[in-house]
Amino acid sequence: MSKPSKKLMLRALDGETLARPPFWFMRQAGRYLEEYRKVRKTAPNFLSFCHSPDLATEVTLQPLRRYGFDAAILFSDILVIPDALGQKVEFREGEGPVLEPVRSSDDLGRLSMDGLIDRMAPIFETVRRLSRDIPETTALIGFAGSPWTVATYMVEGGGSKDYQATRTWAYADPEAFGRLIDLLVDATSAYLVEQVRNGAEIIQLFDTWAGVLPEAEFRRWVIDPNARIVANLRSACPGVPVIGFPRGAGLLYEDFVRETGVDGVSLDATVPTQWASDVLQPLCTVQGNLDNILLLAGGPAMEHAVTRILDVLGRGPFIFNLGHGILPPTPPENVARVVEMIMERG
Amino acid sequence: MSKPSKKLMLRALDGETLARPPFWFMRQAGRYLEEYRKVRKTAPNFLSFCHSPDLATEVTLQPLRRYGFDAAILFSDILVIPDALGQKVEFREGEGPVLEPVRSSDDLGRLSMDGLIDRMAPIFETVRRLSRDIPETTALIGFAGSPWTVATYMVEGGGSKDYQATRTWAYADPEAFGRLIDLLVDATSAYLVEQVRNGAEIIQLFDTWAGVLPEAEFRRWVIDPNARIVANLRSACPGVPVIGFPRGAGLLYEDFVRETGVDGVSLDATVPTQWASDVLQPLCTVQGNLDNILLLAGGPAMEHAVTRILDVLGRGPFIFNLGHGILPPTPPENVARVVEMIMERG
Repeated sequence: MSKPSKKLMLRALDGETLARPPFWFMRQAGRYLEEYRKVRKTAPNFLSFCHSPDLATEVTLQPLRRYGFDAAILFSDILVIPDALGQKVEFREGEGPVLEPVRSSDDLGRLSMDGLIDRMAPIFETVRRLSRDIPETTALIGFAGSPWTVATYMVEGGGSKDYQATRTWAYADPEAFGRLIDLLVDATSAYLVEQVRNGAEIIQLFDTWAGVLPEAEFRRWVIDPNARIVANLRSACPGVPVIGFPRGAGLLYEDFVRETGVDGVSLDATVPTQWASDVLQPLCTVQGNLDNILLLAGGPAMEHAVTRILDVLGRGPFIFNLGHGILPPTPPENVARVVEMIMERG
Repeated sequence: MSKPSKKLMLRALDGETLARPPFWFMRQAGRYLEEYRKVRKTAPNFLSFCHSPDLATEVTLQPLRRYGFDAAILFSDILVIPDALGQKVEFREGEGPVLEPVRSSDDLGRLSMDGLIDRMAPIFETVRRLSRDIPETTALIGFAGSPWTVATYMVEGGGSKDYQATRTWAYADPEAFGRLIDLLVDATSAYLVEQVRNGAEIIQLFDTWAGVLPEAEFRRWVIDPNARIVANLRSACPGVPVIGFPRGAGLLYEDFVRETGVDGVSLDATVPTQWASDVLQPLCTVQGNLDNILLLAGGPAMEHAVTRILDVLGRGPFIFNLGHGILPPTPPENVARVVEMIMERG
């Protein structure tokens, strides 16, 4: 028996196949929980919420108390990096993030890593507190947005439907756009290394908008930057596993895994279960991939899908999760039912 | 030599490999053309524009005059079907389509195929005129939205980000949602058969939002309804080729092609070129897949991508196209440059 006291998340990421797989849910701390909504109201805005160690620690812990997830994920946002680089970032109620767009070399010149770690000090304080306060069998996940995904917000000035400004810039002037990506690789690496130094045991990289790029651009703006961050983490924090999430990568998931060297890959709900088992699981630990709309709908359709995922992916190194974050209208009892089904495994 | 007078589009869809492949562009009639914007202004709203044989015929012909595309595609919209089924459909300027949502068996009861063909008479008149007016080497493509994609608009009441209402309904009550899909299969088949009777030589089925569904739902709501429409067309209009477009299907493109029996498959820009050549082209004619953002950006990046697509996919049965519709800010000279590069092939 290999060290039975090691946390399940770390065992799974180490390549072990477990009868009862570890589980956590993307956006497990969130608006579907009334205790979250209550705390959220006390912060004047979303960024100050992320930067408050008291509030961020509390909401990170809330879902653990309810459901006993095997991992806690730092409560934060992927846009704390542009903010810390000096870009103006605002979260407007009901409207999402609004940023002063970065679209030229001149705009790039106004960003700097100088104040990065200082500006993020409260986040590292949250990581330290979590590291102390979570149950001893729970693993602490630190995270960041991957450069491509963060760049889309920085260039578009917010969310977008087709990332036209970002993609046009990347095509028309790959050299200048590449400098933005390089800056993000450096900033993200420094940010994540600091999370690990403060207690994060696993890192997840969220490349939420990876799926919109054609192959050549996927290689250049998704695989390459993620690979560089993984290499930086390997060198600064040996032994800390990294999970990549190139959401929507479809046919390119395999190359992503092979070429970035991640320890685990998080799968969106469109990835066929048997394919993931055949092609990806021999390469690394897989994480996923229940449709978040099924979690919202509940009932037999949800239970059928959970059973299939557990049956097929449970035969190899595996972490149960969703394909995307929990949606705000999700009934908490559906989450409880899925947790119950997982716990029945062992 | 096989009948050299047959239209290039039909030869390619018949499985022939052509030195100079046929080409047309999705949304080739559209706002990027000033002559289109001029005509568009004369119609009081978008639905009446689609229902005007004079205007719809004119804008369908405009891009042929400029670029000599090998296919004309009927100018219309995928939402003419819900309208003809009796659902209230409005197009509001700058806001997109707004529909009175269909979300229950009661709502379904208010839809009917009774007036369908009558309501669509002006569209068939447009098809007849186009069939008469297009150049004799140009093929006329008729089209419709596929049931899943049309259903998302009908249920959400317009465009959507994650199709939450549609997917929740499909999961929670697949029997009732299945009746909506069945109705759409019947209506779409009748509509397309009538397009063929009036002169359409090729049919394309647009399943624009196919890519959001997990595998089991993709089989049920994408593959199955498209397969039934293909079968209905085969039986009513033997010999008329059908192109399927399950946009974003990723790993499931192959099953879509194998199980629907389409003659051609249109590929979005994320499908890797070499994979399409290796896996899909032995099964059917492939169409695609230049990134529409590259067409917008132009320059060396665009030319490099066009060359690669022509080199790799040109070795088998192939129709050059985009991965998605032409974007309104696209410079017409970029379209001209791509056409020139294709014409240089033979």
